[in-house]
Amino acid sequence: MPRYDAPVRDMQFIFHDFLSLQNYSNLPGFEEATPDLIDAVLEESGKFAKDVLFPLNSIGDEQGCVRNSDGSVKTPDGFKEAYNSFVENGWPLVNKAPEMGGQGLPYALSMAISEINSSANMAFGMYPGLTSGAYEALMAGGSDEQRAMYGPKMASGEWAGTMNLTEPQCGTDLGLIKTKAVPQDDGSYKITGQKIWISGGEQDLTENIIHLVLARIEGAPEGIKGISLFVVPKFIVGEDGSLGDRNELSCGGLEEKMGIHGNATCVMNYDGATGWLVGEENKGMRTMFVMMNEARLGVGVQGLSQAEIAYQNSVDFANDRLQSRSLAGPQAPEKPADPIIVHPDVRRMLMDQKAFIEGARAFAYWTALFGDLHHKSPDEEVRQKSDEYMALMTPVIKAFLTDRGYKMANEALQIHGGSGFTKEWGLEQFVRDCRITLIYEGTNGIQALDLVGRKLAANGGRAVFSFFAEMDDFIGTHEGNAELEPFVEGLKSAKAQLQDGTNWLMQNGMTDFNNAGAASNDYLQLFGLTALTYMWALMAKVSLEKRGDDPFYDDKILTGKYYVSRVLPEAAAHLAKLKTGAELMMALPADRF
Amino acid sequence: MPRYDAPVRDMQFIFHDFLSLQNYSNLPGFEEATPDLIDAVLEESGKFAKDVLFPLNSIGDEQGCVRNSDGSVKTPDGFKEAYNSFVENGWPLVNKAPEMGGQGLPYALSMAISEINSSANMAFGMYPGLTSGAYEALMAGGSDEQRAMYGPKMASGEWAGTMNLTEPQCGTDLGLIKTKAVPQDDGSYKITGQKIWISGGEQDLTENIIHLVLARIEGAPEGIKGISLFVVPKFIVGEDGSLGDRNELSCGGLEEKMGIHGNATCVMNYDGATGWLVGEENKGMRTMFVMMNEARLGVGVQGLSQAEIAYQNSVDFANDRLQSRSLAGPQAPEKPADPIIVHPDVRRMLMDQKAFIEGARAFAYWTALFGDLHHKSPDEEVRQKSDEYMALMTPVIKAFLTDRGYKMANEALQIHGGSGFTKEWGLEQFVRDCRITLIYEGTNGIQALDLVGRKLAANGGRAVFSFFAEMDDFIGTHEGNAELEPFVEGLKSAKAQLQDGTNWLMQNGMTDFNNAGAASNDYLQLFGLTALTYMWALMAKVSLEKRGDDPFYDDKILTGKYYVSRVLPEAAAHLAKLKTGAELMMALPADRF
Repeated sequence: MPRYDAPVRDMQFIFHDFLSLQNYSNLPGFEEATPDLIDAVLEESGKFAKDVLFPLNSIGDEQGCVRNSDGSVKTPDGFKEAYNSFVENGWPLVNKAPEMGGQGLPYALSMAISEINSSANMAFGMYPGLTSGAYEALMAGGSDEQRAMYGPKMASGEWAGTMNLTEPQCGTDLGLIKTKAVPQDDGSYKITGQKIWISGGEQDLTENIIHLVLARIEGAPEGIKGISLFVVPKFIVGEDGSLGDRNELSCGGLEEKMGIHGNATCVMNYDGATGWLVGEENKGMRTMFVMMNEARLGVGVQGLSQAEIAYQNSVDFANDRLQSRSLAGPQAPEKPADPIIVHPDVRRMLMDQKAFIEGARAFAYWTALFGDLHHKSPDEEVRQKSDEYMALMTPVIKAFLTDRGYKMANEALQIHGGSGFTKEWGLEQFVRDCRITLIYEGTNGIQALDLVGRKLAANGGRAVFSFFAEMDDFIGTHEGNAELEPFVEGLKSAKAQLQDGTNWLMQNGMTDFNNAGAASNDYLQLFGLTALTYMWALMAKVSLEKRGDDPFYDDKILTGKYYVSRVLPEAAAHLAKLKTGAELMMALPADRF
Repeated sequence: MPRYDAPVRDMQFIFHDFLSLQNYSNLPGFEEATPDLIDAVLEESGKFAKDVLFPLNSIGDEQGCVRNSDGSVKTPDGFKEAYNSFVENGWPLVNKAPEMGGQGLPYALSMAISEINSSANMAFGMYPGLTSGAYEALMAGGSDEQRAMYGPKMASGEWAGTMNLTEPQCGTDLGLIKTKAVPQDDGSYKITGQKIWISGGEQDLTENIIHLVLARIEGAPEGIKGISLFVVPKFIVGEDGSLGDRNELSCGGLEEKMGIHGNATCVMNYDGATGWLVGEENKGMRTMFVMMNEARLGVGVQGLSQAEIAYQNSVDFANDRLQSRSLAGPQAPEKPADPIIVHPDVRRMLMDQKAFIEGARAFAYWTALFGDLHHKSPDEEVRQKSDEYMALMTPVIKAFLTDRGYKMANEALQIHGGSGFTKEWGLEQFVRDCRITLIYEGTNGIQALDLVGRKLAANGGRAVFSFFAEMDDFIGTHEGNAELEPFVEGLKSAKAQLQDGTNWLMQNGMTDFNNAGAASNDYLQLFGLTALTYMWALMAKVSLEKRGDDPFYDDKILTGKYYVSRVLPEAAAHLAKLKTGAELMMALPADRF
């Protein structure tokens, strides 16, 4: 019953008009990313998602994954064929490094493909998504040998990758990891321990699975400073690349979950499995963070992706469902009732979704471009700024896009009324699938702490001050421009509030860390609201320049105005809350809740 | 893994300290509702819910209901035995009229029992909940004969009742109903049509099911003015009360839903079923509204109930789960890490829940007391005011308590991190079950329209002005009281904003109805935030009077202060949004979403 069509036009707008990728053709990989190629990639990706991935979305939800008694795991019907086709069509290679067989196209573009895949089938999209993260970590932290051994097959998707962090006693606090690594004479390690919530820990899609596992080498320091990273393949890989012995690891069980049933969430038992150290001893967290940052942006886009597919279906429903007459008099007098899109409160939910989705997409892709620039720009200053921007924006994108993405998917369900609660219409699956995005890869609370505790203060606050200066620059340049007035005014207000909140944090969060913790969520929300205001201001500017006969640009400006007038007012509430500090929050004794 | 314990202490506070039910002992039914009896009822109800209903909650979710090929429906294992015991213990009779065999205790008290049952097992609680609604409608609208024939058995719960409104082409807009009623010579009608989403339409709990069905008598006026209400029993009832022929009605299918799997959501086919008119021809909506108003309050309490059970489990988890150290230094140095309740952002989610739940409970029971006063007060003026207050507050309670209840259940899930997403911990079920409360008995958007379009303006706004005057009175009386200062200030601010929003609506909503529709949701949220501020102010006042050695009262005051400082700031955002009007919301052509 539900449908999915990739939002190609909006993605084209972002790449061609908003980010103007064509202006970066001096960068490696970008010279090939012409507007025509981008259009072709988006079209083809959309087609694959619609024809192959989306039809499996409800099947995956219904069937889930099944663990057989031998510990093997069967993914839902059709997933294997779809995965084969996904690999054969070269989709995982789009942004991978040419030396690993990849096309080396912009990371920002690969973000759009991830969004499309995830909208069509989030549970499916997680398999290549996590492989990509594990690949990046190995490429960043692994030895030349490891890169050569695993890189090409992981880049292509022939082999999958996983991230093994969590254990029963530790999720957020990885310093509590107990999994042991015992050095062997041949330079390898024997890994023993249990990991839980391992997405794709076992599956029947790929011939090998390359596990990245955090473990503690015997005698390592306690806590987070004694954690090392290991590569632990399901099948040992020979020097010629052939698959050898089955490693001593197995899937001990699957979690029953609220959603993403098509993705196997595994308990992984390592029983003296052979692994090899990645990078230096006791520095495992460093490499893991490479992977986590990219994964976090990816999770933000997952939140967006579920909002997008939910939105599309709520638009259809609002146009099709006939109930009651418009408050302004019959709009479709020939029908027994008007389509519910005539009702303001239905409009409110549609416009809230649209304004969020388009702003969030711009924010995510804009940030992803810094990921490209950080690696590829010839300009040291640009590389540094891009790196710092990525670091600053990552927790905001992860948490803000998933918090709001979930809210918006719920609004889309709400538009469906009772139908939204039934399985038949698909909405409830989008909501259930989306729910995990607020949790995994670091809960949204952890993102907020990362933002206020680490990212804000990094390098004396250089990144956030640079972001403020950039917004001020926009305000200064466009003040007095009548057409941009609501955006300039909105941005002035948003930026002033964010600066106010930042100052409060600097004054109060340093003296009492609990103040920083108490303010962290509201600060992140305020940051996200401000970032989207800035995105809308930039998009409005370019839309004013481009608009002609194409109503697309008028709609952009209108949607941006809606955002500024009807979403941004939430900023003030977050500012007021964050300024209340920790006292009342911490006052009740723990045993009196 | 999850648990439920009825919040008896908080309910005692509401009945004894806050509402002081003992002061109403002049009213019928209240003379018996002594504090001792109330305590006993709450204790016993909590025990029944914990021992009998709660253990079936996850079983019901897992198994769901099954429709057999003969159209009969099997409820989950244990539901029948639990229902029998529920009836044998006389729970449905608590607030029923003595002439129907009931105890005639206050409606407000029955609200607490409903909350307890619904927390423990919402899907189960819906069966007697809907029976109660159908019973009230029959008592209000039925003939003496009908009341005598169905009343006692429905009051006791031996027979169940259902509400049949929705059809495939109409949910909100009941004017589109097609189900036909053809008059017969014997004064009965033959009912033919299909109803959908009928909760408890078929089940194996009771020997008879009394369906209340909206249908159109042949030749009736079009639209809502041609709808009549019929009582259509599953088994025809003889004059001696015996069960006769099976009626021509059957369950054609069950919906697959996001949650409340233990409740049978039926497609009901009426194939010339024998029914009898309830009340007058074409006036069916009037009686149905009696039932709907009560049902709407009940749904608000369902939203609260899921927030409550989710909260309890999130408190346990926050105290048990060890992750990371407090930002203020180790709090449990003897353990490998601190319990996560030391982290401010976890506290934020706990305090948000606590402040909402206690405020919302007070609001719901306070409103329910007006339900009692409306029927039972000897004072005409009190009866009228109570009726008007009930009418005004009902949409707010339905929508605000379910919107926020769902949000809070989600916060409780969030505190659980990854565990919250797994079935094992129960949280995801509470969230899924809760989701329907925002939809059924009129979507929350419809509640908002009911509030701004009907309830506000009723009797020239008398109810809302009386509510303003009541708040002003509190402010005037307690201004200058240092201990109440945050509450007086909070209430001043909330009330001023609500008045501002009300004025805006009066000035702008009458000239352009779309402005009223566009503002409706934000107005309702603003109303709810203000009402809870008033509840907290009243609770703080009584807690200041009562406090002594019992820290319960100190905690109340603290929680209220938290509400005023950290929740109420949202009011300003809603006011700002509602004042933006309909223009931007309605501007985008429907085919350009």
